[in-house]
Amino acid sequence: MESETPTPTPPSAAAIHPGIAPISYLLGTWRGQGEGGFPTINSFSYGEELHFSHHSSKPVIAYTQKTWKLQSGEPMHAESGYWRPRPDGTIEVVISQSTGLVEVLKGAYNAEEKVIRLQSELVGNASKHKLFRPLGVNASGLPEN
Amino acid sequence: MESETPTPTPPSAAAIHPGIAPISYLLGTWRGQGEGGFPTINSFSYGEELHFSHHSSKPVIAYTQKTWKLQSGEPMHAESGYWRPRPDGTIEVVISQSTGLVEVLKGAYNAEEKVIRLQSELVGNASKHKLFRPLGVNASGLPEN
Repeated sequence: MESETPTPTPPSAAAIHPGIAPISYLLGTWRGQGEGGFPTINSFSYGEELHFSHHSSKPVIAYTQKTWKLQSGEPMHAESGYWRPRPDGTIEVVISQSTGLVEVLKGAYNAEEKVIRLQSELVGNASKHKLFRPLGVNASGLPEN
Repeated sequence: MESETPTPTPPSAAAIHPGIAPISYLLGTWRGQGEGGFPTINSFSYGEELHFSHHSSKPVIAYTQKTWKLQSGEPMHAESGYWRPRPDGTIEVVISQSTGLVEVLKGAYNAEEKVIRLQSELVGNASKHKLFRPLGVNASGLPEN
């Protein structure tokens, strides 16, 4: 009788959900550095780290990003969110940013070429909302909705 | 001469930025459990964990939340974002959710009573956008904008 009511066991954290397999090459931690510049401030060197993680039971990749000043280690921007690829080759990304913005991006992924194209579709500011409706031809072939 | 050009040192991670002091009681990890139920599914027991963290150089609190089924440990919902209190007693919260939603909440905090009132102002779905404009009297006394 025991075999009829097995105790549920947590799924292995190592197994990759089939839904995220096409972009699973993102999983892990990515680091780099760069030079930043804006017209109104001095240029600066910064470090950047992206982290993509997952749980086998969900077709979604969790994402965090942070940048910091190389000289002082002082944190600059940070953001976090979720990447949701779909079986039809499209992908949705939702992000919240430390500066007080939320963002929805839509696009498409090419698993073989390991290319993901994203287009910002919504940027919401806690103080001001902007809804971006791209004009003209949608180069990435995404549905306009 | 060396004293005129001190090497910048990373700020202490322990120091709390004055900007977040009024809600710094949130910092740390909060756990609990509950019973969930919807008309269309069986009720379920779940665990929940909230984590609030900060860096002394920024007036913002980073936030992560996750829930899981108590019986199996299987993850359910997850979300992450940022809480941004302002000196005038208002607060903005931006959140992205594992289900593919972004959310902007606005409200006010009362530091003495340790009460924060938030109202969802924007829920953006990767597939469908909704802009909530609350009707009628704004009970929390927040500016309508």
